[in-house]
Amino acid sequence: MNDLTARVRAFAEERDWQQFHTPKNLAMALAGEAGELLAEFQWLTPEQADAVMDDPEAGARVRAEIGDVMIYLTRLADVLGINLAEAALSKLDEVAIRYPVEQARGSAAKR
Amino acid sequence: MNDLTARVRAFAEERDWQQFHTPKNLAMALAGEAGELLAEFQWLTPEQADAVMDDPEAGARVRAEIGDVMIYLTRLADVLGINLAEAALSKLDEVAIRYPVEQARGSAAKR
Amino acid sequence: MNDLTARVRAFAEERDWQQFHTPKNLAMALAGEAGELLAEFQWLTPEQADAVMDDPEAGARVRAEIGDVMIYLTRLADVLGINLAEAALSKLDEVAIRYPVEQARGSAAKR
Amino acid sequence: MNDLTARVRAFAEERDWQQFHTPKNLAMALAGEAGELLAEFQWLTPEQADAVMDDPEAGARVRAEIGDVMIYLTRLADVLGINLAEAALSKLDEVAIRYPVEQARGSAAKR
Repeated sequence: MNDLTARVRAFAEERDWQQFHTPKNLAMALAGEAGELLAEFQWLTPEQADAVMDDPEAGARVRAEIGDVMIYLTRLADVLGINLAEAALSKLDEVAIRYPVEQARGSAAKR
Repeated sequence: MNDLTARVRAFAEERDWQQFHTPKNLAMALAGEAGELLAEFQWLTPEQADAVMDDPEAGARVRAEIGDVMIYLTRLADVLGINLAEAALSKLDEVAIRYPVEQARGSAAKR
Repeated sequence: MNDLTARVRAFAEERDWQQFHTPKNLAMALAGEAGELLAEFQWLTPEQADAVMDDPEAGARVRAEIGDVMIYLTRLADVLGINLAEAALSKLDEVAIRYPVEQARGSAAKR
Repeated sequence: MNDLTARVRAFAEERDWQQFHTPKNLAMALAGEAGELLAEFQWLTPEQADAVMDDPEAGARVRAEIGDVMIYLTRLADVLGINLAEAALSKLDEVAIRYPVEQARGSAAKR
C-alpha cells in the first residue's frame, strides 16, 4: 500500500467516514469532482485551456480539482482492493493491442 | 516523473496523439471514463455494489474502468505539469483543516 | 421551437454568449451540472435520497441543479438543431425493442 | 404531466423498473449518459464539433445520446415530483439576476 492510499484511508477512518465511503458513493463523488474539473475548462478556448497553469488563480483551482479526483480515485480503489497503478498499467497493455502504433498514428478513430 | 506517467506519455507519443491530448480534451475524457465507472454501479443496491469485486466479470470491468480513469488523470496531470500525488496530498491537508476530526466525526455535512 | 428553447436562446443572445455556446463547451457544461446534481445525492443513503424533496433546503438545491441540467441540455439541442422531445421519444422506441417487456421485467441486466 | 414524462413512466412501469429508478440511481444514470455525450466530442476540434450533425453517423450517435440524457432527466424529475420546464425557467430567472445583460455581455466570467 503506498503512502497516498494510507493517508487517505487514515483521513477517512479518523473521521469515521467509512460508512459513507461505499463503492457506489465514492464512484459518485469521483464523477462529481471530474465534473468540477470540467467546469474549469468549459468556457476556455483551446489556447486558453493550454495556458491555464500560467494563471495563478485558475492554475491553483485546476490543481486542487485534480487533487480531489485523485483522492476519491485512490479511496475507491482502496475500498475495492484494487491497485491503482497496476489497474492503469494493465489497461494500458490492453489498449496498446487495440491501437497498434502503425495503425493508430495520428488518428483519434475509435476501435 | 514516476513510471506510470512515463508509460502513458510514451504511449501517446508513439501514436502521435499529443495533438488530441490537450487539457480540455483530457478533462472531457476523464469525465467520460468517470461516467462509465458510474454506469457499473448505477443499478446495483448498496450491498451488490459493496460485493462487486466478488463477481469476476463485473469486477474485471470495474478494474478496467478504474484503470481508464487513472490513465487519463495521469496524462492530464502530466500535460499540465502537475504532480498527481503532491496535488492530492496538499488537497488532503486543506480538507483536514476544513473538517477537523472532532467536528467531522461521523457526519457527512458539507463545510 | 418551444418556449423554453426560445427563452434560453434569447438569454444567451442578449449576453452575446453564442461564442461560448459551442457544442463541445455545452456538452462539458451539461456534464458539469450533472456532476453537481450527483453531489447532492452522493453521501445520502437510498432512503435519505428518496426523501430529499421533503427537506426544503436540499430540495431547492436539487430542483435548481435539475434546472441547470435542463437549461444546458435545451441549449445544446438547439445549437445542434435537435428536437429534444423527439430525440428522447425515438430513443425510447429503440430501447423498447432492445428490452422487450416480457424479458426485461424486473431485471436491470444490460442488453 | 406532459407526454414525454408519461411515456417514460409507462416504459419503466411496464418493465417493473421502479425499484431501480431511485433518485440516487437516476442521478448516476443521467451523469453516465452525459459522460457518453462528452465522449462524442472529446477528440474533435471545435470546428469538427460544430459540424458534427453534418456527419450522418456521428450525428445519429449525438442525437441518441441527447435522447438518453433527456430520458433520464425526465424520469428523475418525475420521480422527485419536479416540473422540468418550470425548474429550468425559474433557474433561468435566477441566473438572469446574477448576470445582468449590461455586465455579462461577451464575458464568461463567473459571478
